[in-house]
Amino acid sequence: MIDNIDISRRKILSTTTALLGTVALGKIATSYAAPSDSNDMFQKGMPMDITIFVFDDVTAMDAIGPYEALRRLPDARIRFAGISKGPISTGGQSLQLIATHAIRDVTRTDLLLIPGGGPDGLKAMMANAEFHEWVRHINSGTRWTTSVCSGALLLGTAGLLKGLQASTHWRSKNFLPKFGATYSEQRITTSGKIISAAGVSAAIDMGIHLCALIAGDQIARAVQLAMEYRPKPPFTVGAPEQEPELVNIVEHVLRT
Amino acid sequence: MIDNIDISRRKILSTTTALLGTVALGKIATSYAAPSDSNDMFQKGMPMDITIFVFDDVTAMDAIGPYEALRRLPDARIRFAGISKGPISTGGQSLQLIATHAIRDVTRTDLLLIPGGGPDGLKAMMANAEFHEWVRHINSGTRWTTSVCSGALLLGTAGLLKGLQASTHWRSKNFLPKFGATYSEQRITTSGKIISAAGVSAAIDMGIHLCALIAGDQIARAVQLAMEYRPKPPFTVGAPEQEPELVNIVEHVLRT
Repeated sequence: MIDNIDISRRKILSTTTALLGTVALGKIATSYAAPSDSNDMFQKGMPMDITIFVFDDVTAMDAIGPYEALRRLPDARIRFAGISKGPISTGGQSLQLIATHAIRDVTRTDLLLIPGGGPDGLKAMMANAEFHEWVRHINSGTRWTTSVCSGALLLGTAGLLKGLQASTHWRSKNFLPKFGATYSEQRITTSGKIISAAGVSAAIDMGIHLCALIAGDQIARAVQLAMEYRPKPPFTVGAPEQEPELVNIVEHVLRT
Repeated sequence: MIDNIDISRRKILSTTTALLGTVALGKIATSYAAPSDSNDMFQKGMPMDITIFVFDDVTAMDAIGPYEALRRLPDARIRFAGISKGPISTGGQSLQLIATHAIRDVTRTDLLLIPGGGPDGLKAMMANAEFHEWVRHINSGTRWTTSVCSGALLLGTAGLLKGLQASTHWRSKNFLPKFGATYSEQRITTSGKIISAAGVSAAIDMGIHLCALIAGDQIARAVQLAMEYRPKPPFTVGAPEQEPELVNIVEHVLRT
């Protein structure tokens, strides 16, 4: 396990084919059929260009969840793009990420991901016309445009959610109608090429779901195993409307 | 939700008390009793000093999972400490985090968290005597010393796992006996003040578990709600021994 693995694209494809050939392919094909319209780039060995937008006050998990899944795919190329290059403060302040690119230097991408953030960060991005224009331009060339958590509000501000259903953090759901969108209680909602996830930890479900779209279900299942994603939440917590006392603590005691 | 909330420690405690007073405290006390030996610092309003170690090739999720939970606690003070201050590359390369402190400048902390990493990063840390000495020194003053994923191997290298059970990533389990430790299949394993979690996504379970130890179960449940942690893994994936074909893909196709 402590040996690095570096395999060329050709090797990977032949290895994958060999593996799929040696295992119970019938079972995989029936239970976990790869979506036939989605993974042709992967099958052709084309790199998947992925851009994760980051901004001051971003919720780190919203960005890192999909990153941690997608980065495991062979030939995924991931960049973190901010309004400017350089350090980005995350919600909670003590963690900084680095934006490797400024958005003005990103002119197209296959997969755009917009994470959520705290109130200050969201407000700033909702007021940033350069950002909105960039999102609209990038969206015109993506295969998938995605959000996690309150990132849906940023897609909405850019005008991409009109008439659509979208998932978002439960604390953000009342803002969706402002953008002509309807709140979906699903953990992940697909509306054409726009895919949105619920709050914070839904970032992981989204990341693995995107791996399936890009590379097929069997690869995505392997990513799930690599991330040891057999979750065991320490507590049983219902939906917010079932937990008014917890909602009070979230609103008035915890840090945003 | 887009209004920032800034409440003094005193206000928080009185709010918490008021909230707990108005809800079904009997139910909370029986179902979710806060561990009586663990949250006295929180009850006294003392800050909880938390140090997350980061190193080149760290698995971002291992560090961010606990951060995303712990940063929501009032009066948690979290720092990211590296061998040196400055940018840290994570597994997958395109994401960099910033270490706000060098380990030599951290002389004590209440809660130490050691995340896992890729083979190169682990090898480097296993060979770094300054790091081992620092871990042993810090551990002598912690309330909890914790690891996520292959971070357990780093606790082991520093000599902290002798005779103990520990959780780790399934790909790392065979290395534990080298350090006198025994692999535990639990998602989180507690051995005295040493707490270890399984791989990658177990970071979230660990983060919420630590919130419960610090601040009591009701606050931790609110953190779980704030993180919308009602996971819905896209696939059903068994333990590695039940999924040999997926293990092959993890070992030979996916990036480490």
